[in-house]
Amino acid sequence: MADTERAKRGDDIRKKLFGTPPAPSETFARLNEVTVEHLFGDIWTRPGLALRDRSLITCAVLTALGKELQLKVHLKGALNIGIGREEILEMMVHLAHYSGWPTAVNGTRVAEDVFKELDEAG
Amino acid sequence: MADTERAKRGDDIRKKLFGTPPAPSETFARLNEVTVEHLFGDIWTRPGLALRDRSLITCAVLTALGKELQLKVHLKGALNIGIGREEILEMMVHLAHYSGWPTAVNGTRVAEDVFKELDEAG
Amino acid sequence: MADTERAKRGDDIRKKLFGTPPAPSETFARLNEVTVEHLFGDIWTRPGLALRDRSLITCAVLTALGKELQLKVHLKGALNIGIGREEILEMMVHLAHYSGWPTAVNGTRVAEDVFKELDEAG
Amino acid sequence: MADTERAKRGDDIRKKLFGTPPAPSETFARLNEVTVEHLFGDIWTRPGLALRDRSLITCAVLTALGKELQLKVHLKGALNIGIGREEILEMMVHLAHYSGWPTAVNGTRVAEDVFKELDEAG
Amino acid sequence: MADTERAKRGDDIRKKLFGTPPAPSETFARLNEVTVEHLFGDIWTRPGLALRDRSLITCAVLTALGKELQLKVHLKGALNIGIGREEILEMMVHLAHYSGWPTAVNGTRVAEDVFKELDEAG
Amino acid sequence: MADTERAKRGDDIRKKLFGTPPAPSETFARLNEVTVEHLFGDIWTRPGLALRDRSLITCAVLTALGKELQLKVHLKGALNIGIGREEILEMMVHLAHYSGWPTAVNGTRVAEDVFKELDEAG
Repeated sequence: MADTERAKRGDDIRKKLFGTPPAPSETFARLNEVTVEHLFGDIWTRPGLALRDRSLITCAVLTALGKELQLKVHLKGALNIGIGREEILEMMVHLAHYSGWPTAVNGTRVAEDVFKELDEAG
Repeated sequence: MADTERAKRGDDIRKKLFGTPPAPSETFARLNEVTVEHLFGDIWTRPGLALRDRSLITCAVLTALGKELQLKVHLKGALNIGIGREEILEMMVHLAHYSGWPTAVNGTRVAEDVFKELDEAG
Repeated sequence: MADTERAKRGDDIRKKLFGTPPAPSETFARLNEVTVEHLFGDIWTRPGLALRDRSLITCAVLTALGKELQLKVHLKGALNIGIGREEILEMMVHLAHYSGWPTAVNGTRVAEDVFKELDEAG
Repeated sequence: MADTERAKRGDDIRKKLFGTPPAPSETFARLNEVTVEHLFGDIWTRPGLALRDRSLITCAVLTALGKELQLKVHLKGALNIGIGREEILEMMVHLAHYSGWPTAVNGTRVAEDVFKELDEAG
Repeated sequence: MADTERAKRGDDIRKKLFGTPPAPSETFARLNEVTVEHLFGDIWTRPGLALRDRSLITCAVLTALGKELQLKVHLKGALNIGIGREEILEMMVHLAHYSGWPTAVNGTRVAEDVFKELDEAG
Repeated sequence: MADTERAKRGDDIRKKLFGTPPAPSETFARLNEVTVEHLFGDIWTRPGLALRDRSLITCAVLTALGKELQLKVHLKGALNIGIGREEILEMMVHLAHYSGWPTAVNGTRVAEDVFKELDEAG
């Protein structure tokens, strides 16, 4: 990666949210570089909006858009930085009314998977 | 309205967020009743998720789904309960990366309209 | 139009639903030809699903997808073939729960516009 | 559940559509309560729109929004209350033109799964 | 199929893009007929837009709409008519900014699957 | 703007596509900075995908997502770099089948507006 300072900042915030990620495959190299340097290094670290708020709105939007693989990752991140399970499940009930019941049912299913994984990992 | 307790609870939270709304037209009577009794009376008043969080995720999802008329109402609500202008604009920059640039540009335009209205109203 | 039989069938069903449309502009010539011959001439006239059902599901999907200009046209069509105003407003309350409250609010607004136009036209 | 009358009404209509559902997990308890009491108990039982119409527009919107897990459940419900297989497949051909070909292909695949399950169950 | 000339044209362009498809099941018979005769026979063969451009915008839109099964088919088609792997991966990076990061991550995952299948098939 | 090299690159490609833009309002300052430096400066200038292809897929995705204000800007950009009016109108006919008829009708309407503006400006 060309810009080591931005990449380092991005790596740090990603680890804080999600732990250490696996190395990206060659196919994902391009998108991964922009993700680490720009999305995490430049955007998630900006002042003006608390990390908890960024996490919460990211989870809400991923639920509304039905992006379940990404929601799974970000729900883990939300729990890691202190957002509670009850808050996540309430968010789903709330969003049922804004993005439709199916998005809330699917979001609750993803939350259930995440909770189980964490419970099994102890 | 049949269920006055739920309707009263819904009216109260709506007024706290948005001020006194105009009376609904006859066409909107059905939807309005469910909105006041159920959506505001039953859902927005549930424990488990703070009002600020409900407001924030509602604004985020309305931005992502491009529901600009509703976003305008809820951005005013967000400002009324203490969410800051800077936070709203940062939310738009953040969401550009999750629901796409056009949703953030349109959301920022709606925010600009809201800010202008409030500034002109003094 | 090359295929006059399909075009005639399409024109007929369109008139039955919406009345006589204005002539399309030159820019719309291509899309209009496919719309008349294929969408109306071939699809709307297929057996296997009643015209009332086709109209109802078209209105429902246009509401859910937020396609308000097309919803306005198809709500008029629905009323023309005997679907009632109460049914349309109930559909909006129902869909609030499947495609989200904002789609139902916007759909009800479009219905209100259509009802007003028809009332004013006497 | 606090409100037994609404819950009973919701249970009844759900059973009529889908048969007896499995008990919800603890994670789904919140959303399930609102689903049974409000969505099924209050909304699906409202007058003004026939049950067949509610089922049809729900299937149409779930197809258009690509909510395949929910579509599977509601297609079974549609068949249970007398909507025909031919009507469902025609609906998919029709919707290809309003919500796009991929939504119709995926919807037809879900229908095929449902038909197979029912044929195998005898 | 009633219209053998349109069906033949559709079959030809489909084979050029995707190779020989499996025979459609009975459930897919209706949709398949419209797909071959109209979508491929009438639309994909129209003048005015190059085949490469049709393939590229189809892949882009399927990525943006998250239609992964159809994207897989059309990415193979794109590669078959000479669009390069690098172009496909760059398209995903570009679209991350217009339809949101999750659509680009999922699109890149589909591309990775396609590349692997082709590499394994030699 | 902190990073003048990226901003300059972004300004250059934006001018090539759209001409000189008006100065952004204070509300748009944040989003505008990321747009110029990152989206135009870093992404639109990447190798691996031709500018014409970037423009074409951007217009296609904006059509499919119904982002009409942004589509208007990017259709002008597409015409500025040599994409033809016929190609744009054919793209709309094609996309009617992938993102639904209403997206194509609305996209054609935006194209008509753009063509008229350019014809009137001579």
